[in-house]
Amino acid sequence: MQSVRQMEIDAGMSIEDLVANMEHCGFGARRLFEATSIYEQMLGGSYTKFFALSGAMVPAGLRNVISGLIRDGYIDVLVTTGANLVHDIIECFGSHCLGAPDSDDAALRLAGLSRIYDVVVPDEHFIKFEELMQSILPQRANPISGTEFLRLIGSQISDSKSILRSAYERHVPVFCPALSDSMIGLQSWLFRQNRALYVDTLADVKEIVDICYQSNGAGIMIIGGGVPKNFALQSMLVTPRSFDLAVQLTTDTPENGGLSGATLSEAISWGKISENARYVTVYGDATITFPFIAAATLSRLEKKKLSH
Amino acid sequence: MQSVRQMEIDAGMSIEDLVANMEHCGFGARRLFEATSIYEQMLGGSYTKFFALSGAMVPAGLRNVISGLIRDGYIDVLVTTGANLVHDIIECFGSHCLGAPDSDDAALRLAGLSRIYDVVVPDEHFIKFEELMQSILPQRANPISGTEFLRLIGSQISDSKSILRSAYERHVPVFCPALSDSMIGLQSWLFRQNRALYVDTLADVKEIVDICYQSNGAGIMIIGGGVPKNFALQSMLVTPRSFDLAVQLTTDTPENGGLSGATLSEAISWGKISENARYVTVYGDATITFPFIAAATLSRLEKKKLSH
Amino acid sequence: MQSVRQMEIDAGMSIEDLVANMEHCGFGARRLFEATSIYEQMLGGSYTKFFALSGAMVPAGLRNVISGLIRDGYIDVLVTTGANLVHDIIECFGSHCLGAPDSDDAALRLAGLSRIYDVVVPDEHFIKFEELMQSILPQRANPISGTEFLRLIGSQISDSKSILRSAYERHVPVFCPALSDSMIGLQSWLFRQNRALYVDTLADVKEIVDICYQSNGAGIMIIGGGVPKNFALQSMLVTPRSFDLAVQLTTDTPENGGLSGATLSEAISWGKISENARYVTVYGDATITFPFIAAATLSRLEKKKLSH
Amino acid sequence: MQSVRQMEIDAGMSIEDLVANMEHCGFGARRLFEATSIYEQMLGGSYTKFFALSGAMVPAGLRNVISGLIRDGYIDVLVTTGANLVHDIIECFGSHCLGAPDSDDAALRLAGLSRIYDVVVPDEHFIKFEELMQSILPQRANPISGTEFLRLIGSQISDSKSILRSAYERHVPVFCPALSDSMIGLQSWLFRQNRALYVDTLADVKEIVDICYQSNGAGIMIIGGGVPKNFALQSMLVTPRSFDLAVQLTTDTPENGGLSGATLSEAISWGKISENARYVTVYGDATITFPFIAAATLSRLEKKKLSH
Repeated sequence: MQSVRQMEIDAGMSIEDLVANMEHCGFGARRLFEATSIYEQMLGGSYTKFFALSGAMVPAGLRNVISGLIRDGYIDVLVTTGANLVHDIIECFGSHCLGAPDSDDAALRLAGLSRIYDVVVPDEHFIKFEELMQSILPQRANPISGTEFLRLIGSQISDSKSILRSAYERHVPVFCPALSDSMIGLQSWLFRQNRALYVDTLADVKEIVDICYQSNGAGIMIIGGGVPKNFALQSMLVTPRSFDLAVQLTTDTPENGGLSGATLSEAISWGKISENARYVTVYGDATITFPFIAAATLSRLEKKKLSH
Repeated sequence: MQSVRQMEIDAGMSIEDLVANMEHCGFGARRLFEATSIYEQMLGGSYTKFFALSGAMVPAGLRNVISGLIRDGYIDVLVTTGANLVHDIIECFGSHCLGAPDSDDAALRLAGLSRIYDVVVPDEHFIKFEELMQSILPQRANPISGTEFLRLIGSQISDSKSILRSAYERHVPVFCPALSDSMIGLQSWLFRQNRALYVDTLADVKEIVDICYQSNGAGIMIIGGGVPKNFALQSMLVTPRSFDLAVQLTTDTPENGGLSGATLSEAISWGKISENARYVTVYGDATITFPFIAAATLSRLEKKKLSH
Repeated sequence: MQSVRQMEIDAGMSIEDLVANMEHCGFGARRLFEATSIYEQMLGGSYTKFFALSGAMVPAGLRNVISGLIRDGYIDVLVTTGANLVHDIIECFGSHCLGAPDSDDAALRLAGLSRIYDVVVPDEHFIKFEELMQSILPQRANPISGTEFLRLIGSQISDSKSILRSAYERHVPVFCPALSDSMIGLQSWLFRQNRALYVDTLADVKEIVDICYQSNGAGIMIIGGGVPKNFALQSMLVTPRSFDLAVQLTTDTPENGGLSGATLSEAISWGKISENARYVTVYGDATITFPFIAAATLSRLEKKKLSH
Repeated sequence: MQSVRQMEIDAGMSIEDLVANMEHCGFGARRLFEATSIYEQMLGGSYTKFFALSGAMVPAGLRNVISGLIRDGYIDVLVTTGANLVHDIIECFGSHCLGAPDSDDAALRLAGLSRIYDVVVPDEHFIKFEELMQSILPQRANPISGTEFLRLIGSQISDSKSILRSAYERHVPVFCPALSDSMIGLQSWLFRQNRALYVDTLADVKEIVDICYQSNGAGIMIIGGGVPKNFALQSMLVTPRSFDLAVQLTTDTPENGGLSGATLSEAISWGKISENARYVTVYGDATITFPFIAAATLSRLEKKKLSH
């Protein structure tokens, strides 16, 4: 049996050194180390790299981290929520603002501020968002897939830090299975009151299944749970393949029975994740865990590159 | 200031008596009482009654409770996940089975059992599900809305305990914004490899917004969070209305910043819930809290009816 | 394999009928059923009945439920926190009050109100508590055990709904291993500035170990975790015995690694719980779960009695 | 209003740079930044530095981090659980071992391994612990305080990485209010079957209250909750002082009503924390959050020192 090796910390130590110190510890620390090792294998290998993103991660500050990973070739397939894409578009022209979780919400309403925990969005951003969307939404007589719809939006955005723009430039498909469940959905409905637009989300099923079929090994980083987690994992159901590497960062726990907290082991029973897969779940707030995992992973990859 | 009144319990006491005992207590007990009172006001009043259902509630055993509420006229609009509908359809011809949360998932895979926490589904059910779906999925040259698509499926089901069947019979629209994120989505993709089927989920936006516009007071019971919660709440964004009554049963907490754990107060800042609304969140497993709230509510409504 | 049997609810159904409906369901519902069955076996059998109580359950309204169980002979050994005993004593002369979780705490401070989530305690209660304690604390030249100390306090209380009084009358030992961590501890320190009082908490170890040795089968109901859970379970460590029945109601989960969320299975590896034990953990707020479990259990026991 | 500034991460970035990037983000990231800033102010200032430690942090690998903080003069008062001290003593002669959370606990029992989530302790360590304790426990005719008792144990330990030894050397009092709730308690009971030993935990109340009285500003780092949190905070109740700085790292949340998840704001209503205090709660596993906060804080302090 291996021994627990007590962690050591020092002034000036690097992120990867601290993460390395967590290898032989218990609880979340060990999981964070394991997540970093799996993510390093995923990003450094020839896996098709899936990224499932839910939770209000863009308003909370992870937009540039994610668009950076796309631009660096570290995300091949993005599955996310409408909300993250809405807020990605808003960040192109205006910032989210810092608020407080114990705000007077009726007062915020009067002040024209919509709250997401401790972040607020001024109404004027939504007005600009509406104008922008009405000017860039694609008019099409025939149904287009969700990924094509989002690619067209991405092509109309100039901000290079944008997730949608970065995905457009790097030919990374963005899947948003619940597109109508967002302000993009609301704006699309307004848009097509006098213009043609059909988003055929079933076409996305074919696209993601095709990617799974063609992949030569697949890995996934899952932030949160919900639709992005399920849609990405279920895409393996109709293929002979399954995920070989998987990291899940979630605040939900298995005991509730819901998908967001379900263990990755559970996905093995479905054939979504390989029984030989390397996988780990890190429980906790992804605005904390993901930056440390990502920074440690990038540092390791950089070192490897330099040592060659 | 009101005093805490210590709870009293007795052998043989009724559910509504125990819930009544929770009125002047602290923590979750008081919230359970308040949830029951709001739900009684909602079901007993002329509100348009929304029901947002996420989490694997059908596999866990709430199917008949929900279809019963539909048949009794206590749900006017259902917003749910594809998974709950898939498992509703499966229950028409076969039961889910009891498993264990600490199963050997690779062994389950070999045995042909897919696990949802402590519930398992035999592969043969999925095979039957596939056959059934391929025989009842609607072929249509023109796009149909998601609610119409689900209505057509419901019309082909004979099991009166089915949620989809009950909704069909009672003309209750069923919204499933992430339809492609489910085995219904996978089957639809297979189906249309040689047949025409376009589900226009943006059309659902118009339908639910119209319901909001026409409502004369609206209430919502939210189980879990995710897409069903957001889609139902956001439908108010483009109307001058907002929800007057809201109950949320969730295992997620606000501190994580995600929508599933967000307070209902937060929704006031967005204008989704009225600043004068009566609302409460009960934290905890809805397979426990919802049956007690629903049973206490039905008992109260029955008593009121009898006393007239 | 057993089938999931979908729950059914009706107006007017009893608590035990609803709990019975949960037997073949998933998630928390099934655990609630199992907890009720184990508790029925424990209370109806000849087990030594331990009760470990933590969390602010007395301020939240469970005082009478617990003192009732003591008076009915359903608790043989109580292990709890100083806070629950302090608030038990306060309830003898004054009520806790209903507050709000999002209060302005600096304003409450000025108003002389100390907050416990959504319950508040007026300063005057603490002043009365101080007076009462200074008048009833026992003066003793020689060290007394913690249980003897609490027995002496209980003997000076007249309120028959009091936990300490009920325990005194029914000869139920009350263990409070962290006695100094409470206002009883603070008052004892003030008291003995000019009087003799030594509480020998190590003597409690002998007392509880003796109870374990003499027990002929032991069961435990654990509300929360912390010191009460650990002290009760560890008492088996130095005996050849272990718990045969165990129910844990907690809001903490295993993933955190702490004792409060640790599975009862983990306690088997330590020999605290028998490997043949019947045990279950119900995750959730005990102000909700415990009353329903206790009421259903009492109803079942009553029915059994009547049927004989 | 301040803007959210999206985080940026790079290969090779330092821990403090990443934490600095979290300043203008939402959710846990912002709290982690704030915790680091408060901790820097606490460690760099003339505050009396309290440290409340609960959860199985020593088995999980934080022993050296904590003893290091003691040796560096960054902890003036330690309040902890018996379990952490037991495992601190065990680490003097033997390592904890890495296990798995989904172990077969009956098999572990047979193999002589006691499990703490994913860490296990071999029985032989407990046997050695017993021998050691029986040889070093202090024999005293008169009652001694808990801190004196633990100081005497610390004086008998030679391992310089030990928390108890480090505290002994640096004259840091160690409070363990629930001493009897641990194997130290069990061993003390065995020891005094034929020798004199009285631990007077009420004497600790006086000692910690005296420290509070004499402090010229006080700060506290709280890991977990439970008795250590409450005992440290309540010590201010009988003084005119209160904590000026407070950081809490916890996996529990306020909604449960218990102390471990209670907001630090709640403590203001009691007068335990100053209404002008700087305070923050970081929700999440402290084996992840504390090392990053501590490392970032030490790095900042080092830089400040170098810049002078």
